[in-house]
Amino acid sequence: MAEEKISRRVKTERVESRRQQVLDAAATCFRKSGFRGASMSDISNLAGMSTGHIYHYFKNKETIVEAIVERDQQQGLASIEELRSKSDVLEAMLEMGGQCMVERDHMSEPALFLEMFAEASRNPVVAKILSDCKVAIRASLIDLLKFAQDQGSVADDVPTELVCNILMTYFDGITVQSALNPDFDREGALQELRLLQERLLRPARPA
Amino acid sequence: MAEEKISRRVKTERVESRRQQVLDAAATCFRKSGFRGASMSDISNLAGMSTGHIYHYFKNKETIVEAIVERDQQQGLASIEELRSKSDVLEAMLEMGGQCMVERDHMSEPALFLEMFAEASRNPVVAKILSDCKVAIRASLIDLLKFAQDQGSVADDVPTELVCNILMTYFDGITVQSALNPDFDREGALQELRLLQERLLRPARPA
Repeated sequence: MAEEKISRRVKTERVESRRQQVLDAAATCFRKSGFRGASMSDISNLAGMSTGHIYHYFKNKETIVEAIVERDQQQGLASIEELRSKSDVLEAMLEMGGQCMVERDHMSEPALFLEMFAEASRNPVVAKILSDCKVAIRASLIDLLKFAQDQGSVADDVPTELVCNILMTYFDGITVQSALNPDFDREGALQELRLLQERLLRPARPA
Repeated sequence: MAEEKISRRVKTERVESRRQQVLDAAATCFRKSGFRGASMSDISNLAGMSTGHIYHYFKNKETIVEAIVERDQQQGLASIEELRSKSDVLEAMLEMGGQCMVERDHMSEPALFLEMFAEASRNPVVAKILSDCKVAIRASLIDLLKFAQDQGSVADDVPTELVCNILMTYFDGITVQSALNPDFDREGALQELRLLQERLLRPARPA
């Protein structure tokens, strides 16, 4: 019984690692040739699997995009969840925003997002995947801002939905800028994000 | 002599109108098939010209992108120039920002920009074209903000370069969002832009 459990776990881990291998290969191919230009056979070549084997995990390129976005969405939601545990959410946002800006290691490359954005603008399936992700992150971020208002770290009169939209739009802009510019100034962007968050969220100091 | 001048003008106008025809056809092809997927021959077919004729105007797809970006850049710089003539630059920015957001008719479609962004992330020539345009717009916008500070409509203590970067990043984000979402809420975005500009630029009211 115990052995059966272990072998099932090993099997699940192997499947998961194979799936990740496909996602990484697909990310590279999409970046190099564009979503349209990259074929399932390019992806399987790079992943070192047969094309049939890839279809075992993913029905088509859209389901690969779905899995890539899903991975980033889980990461985003986990970060927001972590912020909720902080005694000063605004300070923690400023700090975490900075970390994300400087590291960004845990997220897919911004250039890959540009490729997915471009494809989404002509492919409703990809558009729906990205939009569902945005809806989930947005709901969670609005919730966080309201929690921070109750806590007092974010000003009471902040219109949470508007400000959440501004922040999300700004982050899409950062994706564009960091993908386009190999010398993207992360330290500068960090200062900008701090200023933006301070101006939008910080309670006015008593005179 | 006068007739010669007129015939030269007619000729220049004809060339200009042919060039525009190519740019419009290219924009459609890039959107439909991506920059990589669209060939010069697709573009010439749609423009109703021979491929040789197109090469007479544009050396390759990159020079077509350059001309599209140039057109938008001229439009952007003209708008900023217009703002400089207003007695309250901040109010005029709020108003014009709103107009651009609601109309956007004079600019290339946001989805076309996404395509150019995606290509720029793998093509240094396209990256340079977009980056040169950004540098020009940025210089002009910083100049406008400083002018507005002298005028008193923008607060003295606003760090103009940081704020200019935030606004430009935000506009890239708007490009992404409006391209991805066919039901993009322009009125909502307008409210956000107003809030953003007020918070970043407005002088504090005397208590």
